[in-house]
Amino acid sequence: MIEATDKSMRFAIQEKIDNLNKPKGSLGRLESIAMQVALIQQTLTPQLNAPCHILFGGDHGIEREGVSLSPREVTYQQMQNYDLGGGGVNVFCRQHGFQLRIVDVGVDYDFNHAEYPKIIDRKVARGTRNFLYEAAMSTVEWEQALRVGAEQVDACIDTGCNIICFGEMGIGNTSPSSILMHLFEDIPLERCVGCGSGLDSEGVRHKTDVLRQAVANSKFTPANSSGRPTEVTRYFAGLEMAAAIGGMMRAAERRLVILVDGFIMTACMLAASRIEPAVMDYAIFGHCGDEGGHRLMLDAMGVEPLLSLGLRLGEGTGALIAYPIVQSAVAMLNEMDNFGHANITKYF
Amino acid sequence: MIEATDKSMRFAIQEKIDNLNKPKGSLGRLESIAMQVALIQQTLTPQLNAPCHILFGGDHGIEREGVSLSPREVTYQQMQNYDLGGGGVNVFCRQHGFQLRIVDVGVDYDFNHAEYPKIIDRKVARGTRNFLYEAAMSTVEWEQALRVGAEQVDACIDTGCNIICFGEMGIGNTSPSSILMHLFEDIPLERCVGCGSGLDSEGVRHKTDVLRQAVANSKFTPANSSGRPTEVTRYFAGLEMAAAIGGMMRAAERRLVILVDGFIMTACMLAASRIEPAVMDYAIFGHCGDEGGHRLMLDAMGVEPLLSLGLRLGEGTGALIAYPIVQSAVAMLNEMDNFGHANITKYF
Repeated sequence: MIEATDKSMRFAIQEKIDNLNKPKGSLGRLESIAMQVALIQQTLTPQLNAPCHILFGGDHGIEREGVSLSPREVTYQQMQNYDLGGGGVNVFCRQHGFQLRIVDVGVDYDFNHAEYPKIIDRKVARGTRNFLYEAAMSTVEWEQALRVGAEQVDACIDTGCNIICFGEMGIGNTSPSSILMHLFEDIPLERCVGCGSGLDSEGVRHKTDVLRQAVANSKFTPANSSGRPTEVTRYFAGLEMAAAIGGMMRAAERRLVILVDGFIMTACMLAASRIEPAVMDYAIFGHCGDEGGHRLMLDAMGVEPLLSLGLRLGEGTGALIAYPIVQSAVAMLNEMDNFGHANITKYF
Repeated sequence: MIEATDKSMRFAIQEKIDNLNKPKGSLGRLESIAMQVALIQQTLTPQLNAPCHILFGGDHGIEREGVSLSPREVTYQQMQNYDLGGGGVNVFCRQHGFQLRIVDVGVDYDFNHAEYPKIIDRKVARGTRNFLYEAAMSTVEWEQALRVGAEQVDACIDTGCNIICFGEMGIGNTSPSSILMHLFEDIPLERCVGCGSGLDSEGVRHKTDVLRQAVANSKFTPANSSGRPTEVTRYFAGLEMAAAIGGMMRAAERRLVILVDGFIMTACMLAASRIEPAVMDYAIFGHCGDEGGHRLMLDAMGVEPLLSLGLRLGEGTGALIAYPIVQSAVAMLNEMDNFGHANITKYF
């Protein structure tokens, strides 16, 4: 059960922010982020401790329909690459002192765990079913993947973590993300579909046709989806997405700050928020990427990401790169002097 | 004499970026920043060392015309506050390991340097003259302030610094910045003027009227300004802005990466680029702020800042907060594995 943050401290926090020695409001988004983190932690002196990044990997039945430029094998190859420390996610985790957990929840490959000991084996299935014809996950698989996410968050919290990011590796996973956005936000499907890892316009057209057919076959529509977010998500999402959704919900339940990555993680947060609306109180959106529709989805959700740097790598990199800004917001609140103490004419 | 960066390495750098194990172009702006830093340093393995931030303080004659909400005394008070470590600039310098140099180049106040030992005394004058009636600086003052900036950059380089930011404290300094933008980019004055530290619409109207009259009195026009950037800048800018311009030009001459802050520092880079166009090769723009016209000025200069977080504090805070993104770009280039080595299907 996720509780909304207690807003009764809002006035006290705002007063502290307004008394920092600067023109009122002049630190912009840093001020709103500081407010949010302070509300989550229910303190005027929030701290960010032991940041963790959980990267879930899984394959997608829909990949068989040629909706992605990259072949399925890239999922397992990249997971191995993360184990070796050479991925983008590794670089930015090292830069910002994040503990990285690499979790196989649905990769279509049997890893040699002696060779790749950092890949945590929580495989629910070797990929999802093809949602062009049937639900991607069974109820048992969906619930199992949610539990994997929650359990991994608990393991992070055991290390002292109070701020967390999620990332994904799953060739084909922009496709389910586009459908979730279409069904939950009632945005025309063609505006939700983009080029993924690099489709050309013909590729995007084919992808859109496949996804339109999949939605039609599923009988889900924007009108009949809002009341049953679990069924919709289970039908289309990947196991790595289900794990991220389970992780987000557990993180909010345990009052962590959740720093949300790009298109796919935004779609997961959207799904999580339809299941448990209060999860949004804990979410800071890190990055608006290049994927067609990401800006539209963020706008529909009424949120503004910290960065817009044209990233479209996934893995959680957009969240990790935004992390220092959250640190800046917290440092502002804790370390700037205030008008009461500094000898400065209060000028606003 | 500033030399443009040697672009002959461009192909080799791009090849390295394209071989990192990610879809081509998928790290967006990080890739273009990595390219720029590599070109500045002329290496495939750039490094960022001993980052420095120089904050110049100075007062403005035009402040007497009521163009700023904040009174003149705030300039010296904030300089003292920086000495004590309680300003926004201090917080973010500490966060990112920047050496901070606080330099009085034109503050209208006699500091007690025993009490505030960190304020470096390079005072050229106690503020500028009022450019509503006459040139803000004499030629001697202008050249002296440029030299202060250059000398401070040299001092930073002596500590091993190869990336630098500049910041300012000077009540009233959005006014000269708006005029420089108007004259150098031929953008209508009213679109260049914003609310500074918090003017209301009546205040902005008064400020615009004063600045329009000042431009008329000066006889400078967009048409006759482009050929004499030094005269224009000397007429309107502040001593702290002249020092920043001198610092930027020296930093480029000595091939440092220059991370540019918000509205006022962008106007200084604009002026510097009219004096020495090659300076722009060394400039990374950190932040587009809330000040009316900043986005217009950046667009006119053909540059895209890394961040847009609604900051309008000045001090260099927008540059400092952007620094980790430059670090991410460099880390990407140096630390990500590549397709030649990692066992991954090259997918683009």
